[in-house]
Amino acid sequence: MSIQTLLVLSLFFVASYASVNDFCVADLSQSDTPSGYPCKDQKKLTEKDFVYSGLGVAGNTSNLIKAAVTPAFTAQFPAVNGLGLSLARLDLAAGGVIPMHTHPGGSEVLVVISGTICAGFISSANTVYFKTLNKGDIMVFPQGLLHFQINSGKGQAFAYVSFSSPSPGLQITDFALFANDLPTELVAATTFLDAATIKKLKGVLGGTN
Amino acid sequence: MSIQTLLVLSLFFVASYASVNDFCVADLSQSDTPSGYPCKDQKKLTEKDFVYSGLGVAGNTSNLIKAAVTPAFTAQFPAVNGLGLSLARLDLAAGGVIPMHTHPGGSEVLVVISGTICAGFISSANTVYFKTLNKGDIMVFPQGLLHFQINSGKGQAFAYVSFSSPSPGLQITDFALFANDLPTELVAATTFLDAATIKKLKGVLGGTN
Amino acid sequence: MSIQTLLVLSLFFVASYASVNDFCVADLSQSDTPSGYPCKDQKKLTEKDFVYSGLGVAGNTSNLIKAAVTPAFTAQFPAVNGLGLSLARLDLAAGGVIPMHTHPGGSEVLVVISGTICAGFISSANTVYFKTLNKGDIMVFPQGLLHFQINSGKGQAFAYVSFSSPSPGLQITDFALFANDLPTELVAATTFLDAATIKKLKGVLGGTN
Amino acid sequence: MSIQTLLVLSLFFVASYASVNDFCVADLSQSDTPSGYPCKDQKKLTEKDFVYSGLGVAGNTSNLIKAAVTPAFTAQFPAVNGLGLSLARLDLAAGGVIPMHTHPGGSEVLVVISGTICAGFISSANTVYFKTLNKGDIMVFPQGLLHFQINSGKGQAFAYVSFSSPSPGLQITDFALFANDLPTELVAATTFLDAATIKKLKGVLGGTN
Amino acid sequence: MSIQTLLVLSLFFVASYASVNDFCVADLSQSDTPSGYPCKDQKKLTEKDFVYSGLGVAGNTSNLIKAAVTPAFTAQFPAVNGLGLSLARLDLAAGGVIPMHTHPGGSEVLVVISGTICAGFISSANTVYFKTLNKGDIMVFPQGLLHFQINSGKGQAFAYVSFSSPSPGLQITDFALFANDLPTELVAATTFLDAATIKKLKGVLGGTN
Amino acid sequence: MSIQTLLVLSLFFVASYASVNDFCVADLSQSDTPSGYPCKDQKKLTEKDFVYSGLGVAGNTSNLIKAAVTPAFTAQFPAVNGLGLSLARLDLAAGGVIPMHTHPGGSEVLVVISGTICAGFISSANTVYFKTLNKGDIMVFPQGLLHFQINSGKGQAFAYVSFSSPSPGLQITDFALFANDLPTELVAATTFLDAATIKKLKGVLGGTN
Repeated sequence: MSIQTLLVLSLFFVASYASVNDFCVADLSQSDTPSGYPCKDQKKLTEKDFVYSGLGVAGNTSNLIKAAVTPAFTAQFPAVNGLGLSLARLDLAAGGVIPMHTHPGGSEVLVVISGTICAGFISSANTVYFKTLNKGDIMVFPQGLLHFQINSGKGQAFAYVSFSSPSPGLQITDFALFANDLPTELVAATTFLDAATIKKLKGVLGGTN
Repeated sequence: MSIQTLLVLSLFFVASYASVNDFCVADLSQSDTPSGYPCKDQKKLTEKDFVYSGLGVAGNTSNLIKAAVTPAFTAQFPAVNGLGLSLARLDLAAGGVIPMHTHPGGSEVLVVISGTICAGFISSANTVYFKTLNKGDIMVFPQGLLHFQINSGKGQAFAYVSFSSPSPGLQITDFALFANDLPTELVAATTFLDAATIKKLKGVLGGTN
Repeated sequence: MSIQTLLVLSLFFVASYASVNDFCVADLSQSDTPSGYPCKDQKKLTEKDFVYSGLGVAGNTSNLIKAAVTPAFTAQFPAVNGLGLSLARLDLAAGGVIPMHTHPGGSEVLVVISGTICAGFISSANTVYFKTLNKGDIMVFPQGLLHFQINSGKGQAFAYVSFSSPSPGLQITDFALFANDLPTELVAATTFLDAATIKKLKGVLGGTN
Repeated sequence: MSIQTLLVLSLFFVASYASVNDFCVADLSQSDTPSGYPCKDQKKLTEKDFVYSGLGVAGNTSNLIKAAVTPAFTAQFPAVNGLGLSLARLDLAAGGVIPMHTHPGGSEVLVVISGTICAGFISSANTVYFKTLNKGDIMVFPQGLLHFQINSGKGQAFAYVSFSSPSPGLQITDFALFANDLPTELVAATTFLDAATIKKLKGVLGGTN
Repeated sequence: MSIQTLLVLSLFFVASYASVNDFCVADLSQSDTPSGYPCKDQKKLTEKDFVYSGLGVAGNTSNLIKAAVTPAFTAQFPAVNGLGLSLARLDLAAGGVIPMHTHPGGSEVLVVISGTICAGFISSANTVYFKTLNKGDIMVFPQGLLHFQINSGKGQAFAYVSFSSPSPGLQITDFALFANDLPTELVAATTFLDAATIKKLKGVLGGTN
Repeated sequence: MSIQTLLVLSLFFVASYASVNDFCVADLSQSDTPSGYPCKDQKKLTEKDFVYSGLGVAGNTSNLIKAAVTPAFTAQFPAVNGLGLSLARLDLAAGGVIPMHTHPGGSEVLVVISGTICAGFISSANTVYFKTLNKGDIMVFPQGLLHFQINSGKGQAFAYVSFSSPSPGLQITDFALFANDLPTELVAATTFLDAATIKKLKGVLGGTN
């Protein structure tokens, strides 16, 4: 048998049981599952499926919080599906704030790319850990805990954040409390805030009831 | 060889590789690890290590929220260590409220034992799901999402809650925001609340700064 | 730009990347996966999807074991899909018994709501841990181990059990051995029971062969 | 700078952050944790720590069941600690039986090395799946389900079994029921067996009470 | 009520909540998910679905490496889907070699069935652990690390390998580098090999560019 | 009872069951476990434990590969212990290359901060996916697969990489093959490289034998 024939046999053997489980680029057209979306056909993937340019442009900070969060979660970047991590970028104009929030499904590490950010989180024991971060500093925000980021410098600030989940979720406390139809009396009963304050914030954030 | 001898051999073989990994009752005197506490010596355990009576008595509801949460997490009931679940009981006097809170580390299912409870949670999409629960009703609160329970009846209410973690954590939003030394200006910047409201709640809940 | 416009932008930004992974209510019409069922469309869910009343009524104990297990697993309560926990209720009439059984897929915690229950489990090392439980007592049954619950009081007994899996499974030893077509000689060979005993129990439990 | 200097720098950089988490050979002298034993110091390991010869010799089948299970779990082969798998060998003399049993903590795959084995398992739905396996056949026994292996040939039979856990546990139903001090009346109540049968098996298997 | 009626009730209760999650035999016709393939309908399964005979025959070693790897991964043996383990057999003719490779998704344990095999792996710290293995010896290859197996005896060698994943993957370094269209200059830049060596190996292994 | 007294009671109740499992900053002085290092005493932690500045300075690229990898894994940044993610920075001088390597324990996402990087990976099916990445582009490298990064621009390039593990490991293929005492004949047999090439690379990279 020639070397070429041997080779073909050998290659065939390898190809024949090549796993298709190296990765699972999300097929967003199918239903999600608890472990993530079903996979696109591996044969149809190209290098473009594994690269995303959506974090290369600053988010629009012309808004109430003078800040923007631009995610590269499974919904935006299907290649992270099933891989246990994702990214996002934070842009904070002067005075910008990412309000108090949690990620129900993952821990976070932030790295400052430019500017100065005051960031912190609050533990279950109600202890506050916060610090001013400069370019190149990284900070951890453990899973599910309330945290915030504030531009504490004079110019723009910009950071990348990594998550330990391809879809970590985001729950901004103020939006959860005031930007929906949760009745004012239930908000009052569960937050100790008075009705006037609640109604004012509902007004600002678009809530009703 | 006699049956007795065969038996001894047989039993010896079984005992010699008995796993000590059936369970891992926490040895709270050692350092915790990411998977839970190191295990107590299995040989010293008795049936008492697997039973806990601390949820049999109503919690003291003579407090600000007219409610009490009595946990059976690893810290109180070391037998749940490493098993991926735990329990707690909720007692709500008339007018009692478990304020808006999250469990950073686990999902929850509540079952009403007596009374009537209005319970709800808010999704990452800011959608509110709430409902009045009667005796025997159960409700799910998915991991990390803001939720609350209010006694919506006239008498006492009482429920058991199960968690998908032996140490799910508990972060009550108001205590996280107002019961510590997080500076008022940081609270204001990250919640849209005004300083007067914050200082008032800090006063009530024991916060400073 | 007006505050209202800013607000709309801000809200839009939040809504646009809201995770649909907060929860995954099972769509039982699709095929199960190793991590659970595919998710129902989140937009079609209401609060009713997260509440279940099936555990509010005592199970029918007019049967051989004078007992009933009423589950709220994924199949009955699709909201627990993917959340790592589930519930069930146990009803035991006077003399009722939940026979020796295992849950292949999860650990269990039982809480006695009324009555007196003698409950126990057996470790891999063949050690027995059993105890009489009164109202409010809780007990752990670690994953996969044989355990049982017996009404040891005079009246009805009633308990809730929580599991560390949305579909923990249930394998009652007697039903596994005697309620199917496993040939008598295989049962005999693998249990040390004699053929007469096996055939008698097959007769009672509906087994053949 | 010379190539040698560059090289030293380069090697230093690599060595300086080499993970010690490639593996975690168990230090059995420390307490176990829910994820396994603490790791031995990696610097003290040699190739001998990763190799085990204990499965190379047939187990002693001169016993009641004419069979032997020789495990290479964490307790015997500390290198599998934390790696999510382990092995064992089964030896069955003529007429040998591995009685009905479960592995509370893992699934199993069996491969027949010599002889003929009748193997089967029973599902939660009480369905029996059993088949005669010849040399080279493999069979799956899903986690936590009752299963058995019987030498159905005339000579010796020998198999290797793999588990999806480094410490899958083993609970032989007969030993769990009859080889300890679980009172006869509790065994009777939870198995439907009569007292005489129970006492006889307790006698054979060394149980009391 | 007759015993028969009670029985029917009792059996009905058990059957009605039988879990279908004991196992999840892969339906390869549907899309894979991060946790594995969707499950085949449990009702259509027979014992044949849980048994595989494909490892009973030696692989064809008439090839370049004088060796063959015959897998029983999910793709070949759908019953392992979701169960966290799989098997394969290695056949090495005299002089046979399983070249340097990794399994991206799982750890491995090898057991020698016949012959003599020199096997080894290299840690992240670049330490080499290798040893000559005889019949019955087992060796661990931790997840993701480079390893190899060489027939170091005079006749055939044959081994079974177990993995901690139903689809562990296989990446043979030489095939990854030289059996595709990765441009020679990129291979050169990332391996320190010279272009002539690369082109020669590309020639042998079927690579281009 | 005064509000202050109620308050104290209320706060006491909350503090008394505060979880210490929000995070687990590694105590590197204790033995590692399969789930990570034991936790430092939470009471002794300050905000400094959650912030790391080691990635703020470019690594020294005056070496053979004109590149540097600066990790913030558990060993350098103990706060990521148990949280399922970590970071590192890559610095590539003109002509710099991160040679072909794998991370045995985690997937990776790279984001380009400055410069131009040609990055790619090779699947189990031996398919190559590579692309030139510009500032702000992100790319996924799935767990355990061979990948590389090359500075394809004219100036410095700099990137942050995130991992789905706090200790993902790093195995550079050339260092694994040529920078240790693995005998030349074993390298030859398992890589198809000739002895002269191997000895030359061993010379460059410090290997022996």
